[in-house]
Amino acid sequence: MKLVVALGGNALVKPGQEGTSEQQFETTRQSVEAIVRMIEHGHEVVLTHGNGPQVGSLLLQQEISKEVTPPMPLDVCGAMSQGQVGYMIAQCMTAALHDRQLDKQVATVVTQVLVDEDDPAFEHPTKPVGPVYRHDDALRRIKEGYRMTQQKGGWRIVVPSPDPRSILESPVIKQLIEAGHIVVAVGGGGIPVVESGGGLRGVEAVIDKDLAAEELASEIEADGLLILTDVEAVYVNYGEDDQRMLGEVTLDEIEQLYHDGQFPPGSMGPKVLAAIRFLQNGGKTAIIASIDNAWEALQGNAGTRIVR
Amino acid sequence: MKLVVALGGNALVKPGQEGTSEQQFETTRQSVEAIVRMIEHGHEVVLTHGNGPQVGSLLLQQEISKEVTPPMPLDVCGAMSQGQVGYMIAQCMTAALHDRQLDKQVATVVTQVLVDEDDPAFEHPTKPVGPVYRHDDALRRIKEGYRMTQQKGGWRIVVPSPDPRSILESPVIKQLIEAGHIVVAVGGGGIPVVESGGGLRGVEAVIDKDLAAEELASEIEADGLLILTDVEAVYVNYGEDDQRMLGEVTLDEIEQLYHDGQFPPGSMGPKVLAAIRFLQNGGKTAIIASIDNAWEALQGNAGTRIVR
Repeated sequence: MKLVVALGGNALVKPGQEGTSEQQFETTRQSVEAIVRMIEHGHEVVLTHGNGPQVGSLLLQQEISKEVTPPMPLDVCGAMSQGQVGYMIAQCMTAALHDRQLDKQVATVVTQVLVDEDDPAFEHPTKPVGPVYRHDDALRRIKEGYRMTQQKGGWRIVVPSPDPRSILESPVIKQLIEAGHIVVAVGGGGIPVVESGGGLRGVEAVIDKDLAAEELASEIEADGLLILTDVEAVYVNYGEDDQRMLGEVTLDEIEQLYHDGQFPPGSMGPKVLAAIRFLQNGGKTAIIASIDNAWEALQGNAGTRIVR
Repeated sequence: MKLVVALGGNALVKPGQEGTSEQQFETTRQSVEAIVRMIEHGHEVVLTHGNGPQVGSLLLQQEISKEVTPPMPLDVCGAMSQGQVGYMIAQCMTAALHDRQLDKQVATVVTQVLVDEDDPAFEHPTKPVGPVYRHDDALRRIKEGYRMTQQKGGWRIVVPSPDPRSILESPVIKQLIEAGHIVVAVGGGGIPVVESGGGLRGVEAVIDKDLAAEELASEIEADGLLILTDVEAVYVNYGEDDQRMLGEVTLDEIEQLYHDGQFPPGSMGPKVLAAIRFLQNGGKTAIIASIDNAWEALQGNAGTRIVR
């Protein structure tokens, strides 16, 4: 099967970790094991990934060092994080493939994702990014044009989270996967760009990484979309006495639950929406599972599987 | 012709510029014009590029922010700079291609370059990287295991500059260019890695970007290698009364001049060596010219052209 596997942030940096280079390589090394097993069994895999800790660190560094070296904007920091994480995944995958005597190439493709300048998300920024600011620094950033939100301990910049319209590099990614390579792409939801005077322009926004993975999966006509995260599966009535884990559900069933407001916007909502869109766009199977159970979930023995 | 075009640092940040994101995009926009003209005339192009200012800025940010977020090592910063510069080039190229109604994809491939752990360069670090340190900070870094060199205004870390042995992603790059895409790869000379226990491991080193471009050009069987820099051409007796610009020279002639010590190690030496190796490895033409005259040089009307 042609699979798009969306790795959650905890596949690269474990919660509570400081996030040193050694830790990130070590966690990545563990996370790619399940992926290599899929490849060993003949699946074609494109890997997408989050970039929260990495881009957070980069944005903090831009702010701290701004008096001595020009700070790069969010789109450029996103590109940097794709280079970083793509490199780490490619290096760990190469070793794991070599261990299993699989003669495959891993290619990381820096990915831009087209968003619509008229997306209503631009009117309502919702996604906190970068460091926590004190009150006076927050005021300065507001004067620079940023929107800020108050959080525990201070203020953070919030940016829009527009819908992905088109993955600019998807023809290249499709060609590479069909040639038998493993591709790492659409890191951190992709670098958001808008059409501008015949060209493109990066924007200060963050595209949801699972929705971007879905857009890629649909564009390259993948058979399956695996969304790997830190919870075991999708639940209904989550956190209540009668919470129930979803095993296999149909598209109709999960659409109903989604419209009933079962899945909160900040966490499971976009993952379920990505699964729904993938099946609506012609995909066969969408799976939401924990990274630890990725292989079992692909076999139908763990996680939530959404089918037609 | 299948061309590898190696862009020098000044193709991305002009000398004397602070290096803001806007400046880097603007300079890159100008630099890709000549490349798009080549593509318009039917040439297949892989672009490589330097990363001096970008990785310098990243290393400075790692150092300044090290108390609040874990600093990333040189190999990871190199990967970040590939993401950054690759994104900028891809975005500028896409606009320029669109202007000329050329329906081409631009793909940036994060690139690892294998070096030999026994390369004598590891015994003799020569390449200064990152910020300038004061005496006491330099002592601290020496205790951390770095070698330092004294320069105007302070101390800098020096790292080895080993020879590129193999471009790990070259099969993918070759496939993409042969499919008609434009590829950006081997940024900053590539991320240097060594073989380590069946896998790979990044090392604190910087591969010369022109030698890495040559290795790529040979591996993908390019017809031409264009090394674009800030000087017009290669000179003999450079800076002396009888200095002479080289137009078209044969491999034999330039090998003789190279062995006579005409080209200094830090500047023109590696460029000429890259040209020599390319022809020795079966390449047809190597050109060393200024970025402003790239198109004229390809026509044989500027720069230095090395032929068999």
